[in-house]
Amino acid sequence: MTTHAQPPPATSTSSPSQINNITIIGIGTIGLSLCALYISAGLPTYTLALTILDPRPDLHAYVSRILPTFLDPKLHCLIPSIKLHTDYAADLPAAVRSADAIHEAGPENANWKGRLWADVAPHVAPHTLLWSATSGIPASAQIAAARAHLLAPRLLVVHPYNPPHILPLLELVPSPLTSLAALSTSQAFFSAQLKRSPVVLRKETRGFATNRLAFALLREACALVNEGVCSVEDVDTVVQGSMGPRWAVGGMFRSYAAGGGEGGLRAFWEKVGGTVGEVWEESAKGYGGEEWEETVTKQVQRAYGVPVSVEGRDEATRRVLEV
Amino acid sequence: MTTHAQPPPATSTSSPSQINNITIIGIGTIGLSLCALYISAGLPTYTLALTILDPRPDLHAYVSRILPTFLDPKLHCLIPSIKLHTDYAADLPAAVRSADAIHEAGPENANWKGRLWADVAPHVAPHTLLWSATSGIPASAQIAAARAHLLAPRLLVVHPYNPPHILPLLELVPSPLTSLAALSTSQAFFSAQLKRSPVVLRKETRGFATNRLAFALLREACALVNEGVCSVEDVDTVVQGSMGPRWAVGGMFRSYAAGGGEGGLRAFWEKVGGTVGEVWEESAKGYGGEEWEETVTKQVQRAYGVPVSVEGRDEATRRVLEV
Repeated sequence: MTTHAQPPPATSTSSPSQINNITIIGIGTIGLSLCALYISAGLPTYTLALTILDPRPDLHAYVSRILPTFLDPKLHCLIPSIKLHTDYAADLPAAVRSADAIHEAGPENANWKGRLWADVAPHVAPHTLLWSATSGIPASAQIAAARAHLLAPRLLVVHPYNPPHILPLLELVPSPLTSLAALSTSQAFFSAQLKRSPVVLRKETRGFATNRLAFALLREACALVNEGVCSVEDVDTVVQGSMGPRWAVGGMFRSYAAGGGEGGLRAFWEKVGGTVGEVWEESAKGYGGEEWEETVTKQVQRAYGVPVSVEGRDEATRRVLEV
Repeated sequence: MTTHAQPPPATSTSSPSQINNITIIGIGTIGLSLCALYISAGLPTYTLALTILDPRPDLHAYVSRILPTFLDPKLHCLIPSIKLHTDYAADLPAAVRSADAIHEAGPENANWKGRLWADVAPHVAPHTLLWSATSGIPASAQIAAARAHLLAPRLLVVHPYNPPHILPLLELVPSPLTSLAALSTSQAFFSAQLKRSPVVLRKETRGFATNRLAFALLREACALVNEGVCSVEDVDTVVQGSMGPRWAVGGMFRSYAAGGGEGGLRAFWEKVGGTVGEVWEESAKGYGGEEWEETVTKQVQRAYGVPVSVEGRDEATRRVLEV
C-alpha cells in the first residue's frame, strides 16, 4: 500500500468538543464496550448522546443486561437515554442524521462495510466523522462503492483493542483520501475528551499495528502448540510470567534496549542477535491452516471451558494500567 | 529436533531442599539478576550459599555497586558472604567443587558453553545439577564435547526472562539425555523453594517458548518500523496500551478465547480468522537483516537515549505481578 498523498480538504470541520452525538453501528463485543467507553468518558464535565443501530431482535434486553456489567453503578442511570434502532433499512436515516460521529463495529467484511457507508452517505451531515472499528480492513478498502467514495475524506479506522472501555489504546488509520482535518479532530477528541492513547499510523496495512504484532505472537504460539513443545496453558503461563508484565510497564523496544544494559539496543543485538536471527529463520516456516486452529481450539476449550470466565479480569487490567 | 526418548537414570539425586550451594558462572545482566533472585529467595526460612565465577577484573566492585540496587536493603548484609572468583582456569575447581547446582549465564555461544561444561566435568560432585540460562541454545547443543557429554543427564536449560529477580517465569528445557530425576528436582526446587513459575517444555527448540514468542513480535515490530507504518515509540505505546496489560492479566490464548464471547476461541476464529490469515500471509514476507536492526537501533537511541533509564521499572513490574 502507498504512503499518503496530500489529502483533500475536509468537507467540513468541527472541533473535538462539538462531538456530542455518536452513533454506534453493530453491537457485538467491541460495539458494546465502545458504548461503555462513550457513556463513561469525560464525565462529569462532558457527556455524549448515544444511538445504537443493530438488527438483533433482543437489542433492548441485550443492552440492559450486558452494558451495566461494563459500567460503574453510578452511570447505570444513563443507559435508558441511549436511542436503540433495530431495523437497518428503515431506521438507518434516523440513526445517523444527527450524528457528529458514527463508529462502525459491524461484521469483519469489506463488502458489508462498503455497503454500509454507501447506505449512510445520503443521510449524514457534512461534518459527520466516520470511524470504523475493523480489526484489519483498511478504510481505503471500505470505500470501493461509488456513493461511499464521497465519504472518503471523513472516513478513517479507529481501531480499539478489546475491551475498549478498559484498554487505552486506539489505532487511528487514515486512508490516503482521509482529510487532515478529520484525522486531527478525531485524534484530539480521543485524547482530550476521552482520555485515550490514540496512535496514528502513517500507512495503511492489513491488521494495522496491534493485530500485526498480536497475530505474529499468536501464530508462533499456535506453532509451539502444534509442534508439541507447549500446551496452551504453558503458553499463557509463559506470556503472563514474562513478556506480558514486562511490556505492560515498559513497551517492547524500550525493554529490549534496557536489557542491553550500558550499550542499549545495539548491545542487545550483539549479545543475542545471533539467536534472534536463528529463531526468525526457523519460525518463518510451516505456518497456518485450519488444522492448526482446530488443535489449538480444542486444547483451549479443555483448559478454560466455553465460554471463558472473565470474572475479575477487567478490574485486574484497570489496576495494571494504574501502576 | 526429536521428542525425548526415555532418559537414562540420574547419576545421583538430591531433594530440592538439599540444594544449598549454588555457583553462578558469568555475571552479566542476567547472571547478576539471578544472583539477586537466589540471595532473596525463600527467606526467611531458607538461604542459599552463593559463589560467582566471572573473569571481569572489577568483579568485587561491580557486585558491590549493582547488586544492592536489585535487593531489599535488609538483605544487603548478605552480599559480603558471596564467594567471588575471577580466574576461570585457576579458580574453576574451587568454584564448582561444593556446588549443589551450577547456573551458567555466560556468553551466548554453543562452543563456549560446551567447553565450559567440559572444564567443569572433572570437578563436580555426582549430584550437582547443571543449569544453563541460555536464551536459545538447547542443552543437547551444549554437550558435543566428549567430557561434557558425561554431564548430559544432569544438564538442562533453566532460562529466565529478564530480569529474573522480578519476573516469575522460568523455562525448564531438558535435552533428550536429561534424567527425569534432574528435571523433577529442578522443577520442585524452583517452584517450592524459590516460589517461581517453572514451565517444562516437552521438546527442545531454538529460542524455547519465550523467545520464539517474543522474537516473533519483535520481528513484526521491526517490520512495521522499517516499512514506515509506525515509529518505535508508537510500537511501544501500542504494546503498553493493549496487549501488554491484557496478556499480563489473562495470558494470550485465554484472552482470545474470552474475546470470542459465548462461542469461545472457535467464535474468535469465525469472526476474525479471515483477517488473521491475511495478516499471517502478508507478514511472512521480506523479513530481517542487519539494515533493519540499524534503522530500529538508531530510532530507539533517539527516542530513549543510551543507556535506557530503568528507574522505577522493576517496582512497577512488581506491582503489576501483585495485581
